[in-house]
Amino acid sequence: MTKQQLVDQIKKKKSFLCIGLDVDLDKIPQHLLTLEDPIFEFNKQIIDATHHLTVAYKPNIAFYEAYGIKGWKALQKTIDYLNQKHPEIFTIADAKRGDIGNTSTRYAKAFFEDLNFDSVTVAPYMGSDSVEPFLAFENKFTILLALTSNKGGLDFQGLQSDHKKIYEHVLETALTWKNAKNLMFVVGATRPEYFKTIRKIVPNHFLLVPGVGTQGGNLQDVCKYGLNDDIGLLINSSRGIIYTSNGTYFAEKTHDKALELQQEMEDIINRQF
Amino acid sequence: MTKQQLVDQIKKKKSFLCIGLDVDLDKIPQHLLTLEDPIFEFNKQIIDATHHLTVAYKPNIAFYEAYGIKGWKALQKTIDYLNQKHPEIFTIADAKRGDIGNTSTRYAKAFFEDLNFDSVTVAPYMGSDSVEPFLAFENKFTILLALTSNKGGLDFQGLQSDHKKIYEHVLETALTWKNAKNLMFVVGATRPEYFKTIRKIVPNHFLLVPGVGTQGGNLQDVCKYGLNDDIGLLINSSRGIIYTSNGTYFAEKTHDKALELQQEMEDIINRQF
Repeated sequence: MTKQQLVDQIKKKKSFLCIGLDVDLDKIPQHLLTLEDPIFEFNKQIIDATHHLTVAYKPNIAFYEAYGIKGWKALQKTIDYLNQKHPEIFTIADAKRGDIGNTSTRYAKAFFEDLNFDSVTVAPYMGSDSVEPFLAFENKFTILLALTSNKGGLDFQGLQSDHKKIYEHVLETALTWKNAKNLMFVVGATRPEYFKTIRKIVPNHFLLVPGVGTQGGNLQDVCKYGLNDDIGLLINSSRGIIYTSNGTYFAEKTHDKALELQQEMEDIINRQF
Repeated sequence: MTKQQLVDQIKKKKSFLCIGLDVDLDKIPQHLLTLEDPIFEFNKQIIDATHHLTVAYKPNIAFYEAYGIKGWKALQKTIDYLNQKHPEIFTIADAKRGDIGNTSTRYAKAFFEDLNFDSVTVAPYMGSDSVEPFLAFENKFTILLALTSNKGGLDFQGLQSDHKKIYEHVLETALTWKNAKNLMFVVGATRPEYFKTIRKIVPNHFLLVPGVGTQGGNLQDVCKYGLNDDIGLLINSSRGIIYTSNGTYFAEKTHDKALELQQEMEDIINRQF
């Protein structure tokens, strides 16, 4: 998918919502457990109920890996379903991978070619040659961790070096890498005060923003400094949206929650564009 | 496995070698490709030929993930084979994972419980709550990336903050985390001059050292400052040892290369202990 196709989809749907498909068999409606593939069935019903309200889906790979081969099969079916039924949707493998050059190429092929995701999240700790193999794929996006939403996020990202914080170094340095146009960045919603600085460094790139909802981030605060001319934000909600109900009509409840967020986003888009 | 069991094995075998099982179907002997599971068959023959010379095996998960479900099945068979036939061997899932708390728990369960590895490599960028879920597992080890061997390793790890480099902050901060005794650290052999500083910060922890051989690191240089009273080093060789030959007798060639490294290690152990 090209960046322009993503922007067009956002403007058409008046939504920059991303739904996190973090499937936990202990939390999904228990009537699904009798089915052959409850993980895929849960995802399918969520997708069927929300695809017109969201522009992206983001399975966190840990949740699938935790179920071994059964989990990988469910992931494969989920991405195939998305690519076949809703090719306009932007897909994110939230894998937080990163390794030395030839090994990163392996991960990139696994997610971009074999599974055919549009993007994958990558950790920056190992530097240029751990990320550039991902950036080499045309019309695929590498979403680099910059400033994460979790409690320990500032342990190292927040250290000061040469009058800048480490996450700022990550943003600035990444822009110098080959095919930097294929970058997006993860910036947590729990730190909205940082968006102003971040937008000065990366005015044009998309930011994937987890942490709205369950983790306490606020959509209005993030949009205040995070939006750019392309909208430029993908706001993710996982637990806060997919586990709204565990009854028979869970997908309808998730639809209602997604609609609520989409409406809030539509108001913001109408106000600003 | 306990740390003492690992130390006992090292002293018994007079080896602190770790063999990296990074299986690439383009590089393995082509006669294996006609078999039902060439990845596992390659690993099995390597293990059969070298288990008395090495104390650890380290499959890099990227190589398995790249082959999808087929790869995961081969990984499962490989770790099961190791655990059943050679329970004294220390097993490392080189996965470089790391995510927010509840998600890291998922990864930890996948590698420590379902696959039953003794250890897993983890990236530190997301801080305390991304690593502590791994540390909570008793007699399992979390091998944290500190100073990596690749070209871009110093891009961020080498930045200076408050008179210390970022990798030093990672080492120092990690020691304050809950269950820090379950930590080991990745330190690349390509930067032997850093081992002196590193051993001042973490005198007692094991270091997993990639980069000897193909990447240019030297065993003697690493041992000079890296050894501690428990030996405290696991020296990894992957490509430099498993792709010594691609003929019918590849496993014998790998054995010979492993023996050469083990002999060098035995000399070092005999000299110093």
